[in-house]
Amino acid sequence: MFTSTKQCYCKLILQFQHKLKQTSKQASRACSLKVKQIINEPLLEERKYDETDDETDSEITFRFKDLTTTLCNPDQLRAKPDVADLKFGHVFTDHMMKVFYHKKLGGWQKPVIIPFENISLHPAAKVLHYAVELFEGMKAYRGVDDKVRLFRPDLNMKRMNRSAQSSGLPTFQEEEMIECIKRLIQVDEEWVPHSEASSLYIRPTFIGIDGTLGVHQSDSALLYTILCPVGGYFEGTKESVSLLADPSYVRAWPGGSGDKKVGSNYGPTIRAQKKANQKGLQQVLWLYGPDHQITEVGTMNIFLFYKDEFGVKRLATPPLTGLILPGVIRQSILQLCEQWGEFVIEQRTITMAEVINLQLSDRLLEMFGSGTAAIVSPISSIEYLGQTIQIPTTEHQNPLYRRVREELKAIQYGHIDHPWAPKID
Amino acid sequence: MFTSTKQCYCKLILQFQHKLKQTSKQASRACSLKVKQIINEPLLEERKYDETDDETDSEITFRFKDLTTTLCNPDQLRAKPDVADLKFGHVFTDHMMKVFYHKKLGGWQKPVIIPFENISLHPAAKVLHYAVELFEGMKAYRGVDDKVRLFRPDLNMKRMNRSAQSSGLPTFQEEEMIECIKRLIQVDEEWVPHSEASSLYIRPTFIGIDGTLGVHQSDSALLYTILCPVGGYFEGTKESVSLLADPSYVRAWPGGSGDKKVGSNYGPTIRAQKKANQKGLQQVLWLYGPDHQITEVGTMNIFLFYKDEFGVKRLATPPLTGLILPGVIRQSILQLCEQWGEFVIEQRTITMAEVINLQLSDRLLEMFGSGTAAIVSPISSIEYLGQTIQIPTTEHQNPLYRRVREELKAIQYGHIDHPWAPKID
Repeated sequence: MFTSTKQCYCKLILQFQHKLKQTSKQASRACSLKVKQIINEPLLEERKYDETDDETDSEITFRFKDLTTTLCNPDQLRAKPDVADLKFGHVFTDHMMKVFYHKKLGGWQKPVIIPFENISLHPAAKVLHYAVELFEGMKAYRGVDDKVRLFRPDLNMKRMNRSAQSSGLPTFQEEEMIECIKRLIQVDEEWVPHSEASSLYIRPTFIGIDGTLGVHQSDSALLYTILCPVGGYFEGTKESVSLLADPSYVRAWPGGSGDKKVGSNYGPTIRAQKKANQKGLQQVLWLYGPDHQITEVGTMNIFLFYKDEFGVKRLATPPLTGLILPGVIRQSILQLCEQWGEFVIEQRTITMAEVINLQLSDRLLEMFGSGTAAIVSPISSIEYLGQTIQIPTTEHQNPLYRRVREELKAIQYGHIDHPWAPKID
Repeated sequence: MFTSTKQCYCKLILQFQHKLKQTSKQASRACSLKVKQIINEPLLEERKYDETDDETDSEITFRFKDLTTTLCNPDQLRAKPDVADLKFGHVFTDHMMKVFYHKKLGGWQKPVIIPFENISLHPAAKVLHYAVELFEGMKAYRGVDDKVRLFRPDLNMKRMNRSAQSSGLPTFQEEEMIECIKRLIQVDEEWVPHSEASSLYIRPTFIGIDGTLGVHQSDSALLYTILCPVGGYFEGTKESVSLLADPSYVRAWPGGSGDKKVGSNYGPTIRAQKKANQKGLQQVLWLYGPDHQITEVGTMNIFLFYKDEFGVKRLATPPLTGLILPGVIRQSILQLCEQWGEFVIEQRTITMAEVINLQLSDRLLEMFGSGTAAIVSPISSIEYLGQTIQIPTTEHQNPLYRRVREELKAIQYGHIDHPWAPKID
């Protein structure tokens, strides 16, 4: 009965989907929601599952094998926007994934994929008062072979568990979450843009939901994932970004939570971000300490490509000492450049004084930011203590930032077959 | 028509309320929800209102005069718990106050009092990802004269506006919010416990609700207030609290948001709080800097009462340099003690080394915390670098902490008529 209703919906979905807009060379496939696969292959994972785990399982993790999917009614399906019109984080797909944790009910409950809907919270929910919240940012890419790929989701899920631990929230088995996310993307597969200038942004989110006041560990929590097709992160036509480095604002400090992807690292930065925007600058470059060390951009890690006094090229980025987010793209750039072996790679403290000295002595080649949302973004200038430091990042032929970005995109969009980019089906 | 439906509800409420439990000498008044007042006096404020404000008003503030009240259906009324059973922040009253801000609609919307209900949020709401959230803690006290009083609500509302500014949220006129809160308390007046050991905790909360991803200023926000009857903040029978001072955790930093009542200051502290609880200690004493300055307890400001080398009594508390919350009770204690003029008052840096030296030389008299939730709580011990420092706070006759607390309670519960404690009706 359930399956037949589902199949009935699927037919309707197929009927309706063709009316939705999809900018693509393969527009004819815009209605190919892979519902058959969802209906026909649910038993695959059950065979892998060891039933002896059953009793204590929900204390440790939820399981992909328990995932149930409820598809939208056709009238709930949203129009897909033109890829060219995409504003970061404004349009969401038709479905979402949810899994509750309730200590009183033994821990993790069964994951569900359901039509995208609002979240109903008790007004005293911990997330609304004490910022018991964390998230991840990942992307799904439609490759040249029309296969959809993720990029190193294992690293994101490891980081998510570290954020959870630091927030007093429960952890889960990372591969189970990845499988659930893959299934969600399969359900909304036609939302993965048919364009290498865009991708499907994946936002796993984890919030404490106990409806009680008082700063305590959460006994109830909600882990959910939403998806949105995205173009570039930064608005405007210019490729490069301008930064404000104001030492009076501090993002993170030793003994704090600057290396976790928790909400607390973002709320307090909005004021400085607003100040940057008012000055016509795009992002804040966060400094730390009396020597004004550069740390990160809030949405990006930062890289400095320069020549030392002997003319040797070096790529430097701040170290993972707790002050910056351990970015997946950051790590990937370091690994790629190490493989190339063409210049020295340094994870070390970089001060604003050094940046200025390098620029004055014409040894500063490039500065760029890296992040899942921002990919690799060249930096054109830094406003610092009333002065504007021009960074010649985009003024070279074959700049490093572009080479790095092309290499990453080649992996993400399947030009190269690479273990970092697992296919979804 | 509306009024008569309301009156009909009111009668029903009165019929049902007497079944609800209320521990009180005056239990007979448990059904005296002051609905008549609400119905008969709505025009009072309109006379004060200057109609020339009208056009641009919603950009600046919402108005109490626009407040509408929808009372619970009788079957929605909750049972009132025994005051003796009250756990902090677990039981909420029947109604809540809400006011939306939507930039697109001109700003502040009209405030409403409605039955207590869940909040429905877009899954991408800023509050769930970037901790765009802040709150206040206030209390309403039922005095010896049966009048309900607030305590310095103007200071809380000033602080709330400062928190809002730092979070990129809109501000409002403080007196308008105070009037709305007063009306909410009038509606749920029978929830104000008839006991001087308890009070009605007021939690104004302000969250960013735009349903878009990306770290940006919120164009939509929800300001709401919930109420809960409370006893003591700390669980257990002992009056005094034990603290863990671990320099490896840092709560706040210059250039951060440690002096604002924003969610971001709380989420990252839960891990340290858990560590304290695992050691059998109640709260974390947050240290700062290489000299291990004491800052605050997270839920309380901290005071040190001691004798200097000349035998002169001094009351010291950390200064407002951005690292600690500017507490209303902290400020009130300083003002009271200044009026008494019996000892020296100092707002200055206090290090752990000084605390240890004072204790070793028998010059440490008392340490106590202050806060709206915790009132004035004596500190019995501090665990620091593997050692337990015993604080003789409760070992004196007529200790200062008790005198301060009694004085505050005398004001709050109407034993003294005082401008700090405005009556609600």
